[in-house]
Amino acid sequence: MRPQDIIKKKRDGGTLTPDEIQFLINGYTAGRIPDYQIAAFTMAIFFQGATREETVALTECMLHSGTVVDLSGLPGKKVDKHSTGGVGDKISLPLAPAVAAAGVCVPMLSGRGLGHTGGTLDKLEAIPGFQVNISLDRYGEILQQIGVCMIGQTSDIAPADKKMYALRDVTATVESIPLITASILSKKLAEGIDGLVFDVKSGSGAFMKTSDDAARLAQNLVEIGTMMGKETVAVITDMDQPLGLCIGNTLEMLESLDVLRGGGPEDVVQLTVELGAYMLKLGDVVENVDLGRQRMRQVLSDGSAFEKFLQLVKLQDGDPDVVLHPENFRRATHQHTVLAPGSGYVQTINSEGVGVASMLLGAGRERVDTAIDHAVGIVLKKKVGDMVAKGEPLCVIEYNDDTRLHDASGMMERAYTIGESSPEKHPLIMQVITG
Amino acid sequence: MRPQDIIKKKRDGGTLTPDEIQFLINGYTAGRIPDYQIAAFTMAIFFQGATREETVALTECMLHSGTVVDLSGLPGKKVDKHSTGGVGDKISLPLAPAVAAAGVCVPMLSGRGLGHTGGTLDKLEAIPGFQVNISLDRYGEILQQIGVCMIGQTSDIAPADKKMYALRDVTATVESIPLITASILSKKLAEGIDGLVFDVKSGSGAFMKTSDDAARLAQNLVEIGTMMGKETVAVITDMDQPLGLCIGNTLEMLESLDVLRGGGPEDVVQLTVELGAYMLKLGDVVENVDLGRQRMRQVLSDGSAFEKFLQLVKLQDGDPDVVLHPENFRRATHQHTVLAPGSGYVQTINSEGVGVASMLLGAGRERVDTAIDHAVGIVLKKKVGDMVAKGEPLCVIEYNDDTRLHDASGMMERAYTIGESSPEKHPLIMQVITG
Repeated sequence: MRPQDIIKKKRDGGTLTPDEIQFLINGYTAGRIPDYQIAAFTMAIFFQGATREETVALTECMLHSGTVVDLSGLPGKKVDKHSTGGVGDKISLPLAPAVAAAGVCVPMLSGRGLGHTGGTLDKLEAIPGFQVNISLDRYGEILQQIGVCMIGQTSDIAPADKKMYALRDVTATVESIPLITASILSKKLAEGIDGLVFDVKSGSGAFMKTSDDAARLAQNLVEIGTMMGKETVAVITDMDQPLGLCIGNTLEMLESLDVLRGGGPEDVVQLTVELGAYMLKLGDVVENVDLGRQRMRQVLSDGSAFEKFLQLVKLQDGDPDVVLHPENFRRATHQHTVLAPGSGYVQTINSEGVGVASMLLGAGRERVDTAIDHAVGIVLKKKVGDMVAKGEPLCVIEYNDDTRLHDASGMMERAYTIGESSPEKHPLIMQVITG
Repeated sequence: MRPQDIIKKKRDGGTLTPDEIQFLINGYTAGRIPDYQIAAFTMAIFFQGATREETVALTECMLHSGTVVDLSGLPGKKVDKHSTGGVGDKISLPLAPAVAAAGVCVPMLSGRGLGHTGGTLDKLEAIPGFQVNISLDRYGEILQQIGVCMIGQTSDIAPADKKMYALRDVTATVESIPLITASILSKKLAEGIDGLVFDVKSGSGAFMKTSDDAARLAQNLVEIGTMMGKETVAVITDMDQPLGLCIGNTLEMLESLDVLRGGGPEDVVQLTVELGAYMLKLGDVVENVDLGRQRMRQVLSDGSAFEKFLQLVKLQDGDPDVVLHPENFRRATHQHTVLAPGSGYVQTINSEGVGVASMLLGAGRERVDTAIDHAVGIVLKKKVGDMVAKGEPLCVIEYNDDTRLHDASGMMERAYTIGESSPEKHPLIMQVITG
């Protein structure tokens, strides 16, 4: 077998055998096949796509390039959630402890933020001392003890995906549904899960800009996940404006603590309840999704979700003081309020613009090696559909570094559009695809 | 500018600016842009194609990545021929000296054989002592002195093309018309020519398997050549069977010497005359192609083409003895005759099969670093349309190494198909495309 013959076969629309895919991916991971052949291969997949069987083979190779955690010793089903990422998307923070409080084990390996989107690990690290770099053995112990653990992907997990993703990023082959599917699943299936709920974002602030693209990705994730023996559900959700009111690591943690105490913005609560309901259904602790929703609202209001999060923080070396007394979080030293330039209704809030503004303040990373400032961020005072008078606050920018304010406030001014009539409101939950 | 953004633009069907193409190609040649980004870029071009303006920009970059010879000091127009390569294609050997004898300067930089196709340099080196590695200064001197010089591409010529071609070969991006065009033209325009005749082969033994593909390549070569200020003509010729009767370096040199002395197989003579006629027209020494054909037949029959070749051999350190006394060429030590398995007419001769058989004997290279045996090869005794009786010779294999005979003779047996009825004959010259 020669790599170029396999690349040519895919290029010309042929269907590759599992052996051919293994030859390429295992060879690449082991360093026998160079970057340039995989770059040509992924570009050929971008144009020709991949069958479900090819995608399964690709995912299998990438999954088994590293450690696959075995949690079969723990009782009950293990269920996780994966989000394709959005602006202000802190849902994992209230969701994981809430689902665990409702009786389903949640083994969660998360990533860091890059560009205009944040990452769960960065938000968790807003709690002083919180450790996300935990061994897979300790991860198993914490899961056994409290039914939830939230850590970073160790280098043992799907190294083939790490190598391929870095290459795709610099060769313009990121936007390929089979490659995205294989990348997501190879990491998530390594966690030791039985079921997986996907939150596929759609809209201006999301990776999938149209609902058609989002539906195609959701369908593919569910199909391939099912073929790989996992129970899966995909929920397509609106990302035409940021989720919740807070963007920035500490601010999002604060908002999540509100939700865990039974409060918080309606959209964050709704999405936490909805995704949790499907996770509880996949975890076999409720008979249907409606009962799942009820159970989720219960654990959020009765303090059990909050209590579970407090246990998690303690077991992962975080300071419980800030969780119990959120006013003790270190906050940014300065505030700047962006005022409405005219009166009317908020028509749109450009999520990507808000995400970039937050990144410019230091809350996010321009490159993977950028240091971040957990304290800074943006608090939205108006969301889509809200009425606003000229001179009223649209949002508050919380910042530490004067030199970063100017660009960020300019972006926030441009992120809002205000018009005369009340805009049509999109539903947050757009579509649900089950396996 | 970031390479991945330019790759993405092409991937999504955009048209690149000359600056963007320069950024990529110059960066690649200088080692600033890695192989993997160019591999993804060329695969994107494979799928999205390139406009004529993009192809010109690409060709310009590749051309100016190295030395561009200036022959403007020499009188008259300089005209060369480029063939896309076929089995038994030794046309450059009689053509270059014949055109020079007819008064047009022929500066010719050629390549070596690879796989099932031979190379002009290898055939020239069948003459003991013949030097193809000559400096570009000496090349200019020989051209001034006798109006023809046949050398190899020095490392000064289009280094960007060398680097890209090696990469395309191992990433399955060879078969792209704009990339083929840029590769051919960047090398040929570096020779210092004013005009260029393309021999685009079509058929089972050619790079372009169908006449449609051949016509698309021919059209593109002529258009881009014209846009770059050169006078161009493309002749599409049949490669459904080998050209002439001889395949192998010394054997092809012998056949070429026959043509230069006014003899040789009809198809080799016809193609030499036809391509030469267009070269003489582009060189402004005849008023029309018909007069060009007459002039070509004249220089082949009156000894002046042969005399020019003899001068060339002497100036490039070749032994004139074998040219004057072809019986003194060192030949293979053994012969094996392949006999017809039945009676009838030769329907087809699979050119690629013949080329591979010749390569297996040692006449060609499996890899770029394979050593070749100039003496070995195949002499066809029957061509398409010939009547043959069972047991009559189809071809003679001339070989030196017993262990190589078996596979080669098997391939030759399979290369011939014999049927009852007389097959339809293809014309050798299929189409002519002028600039």
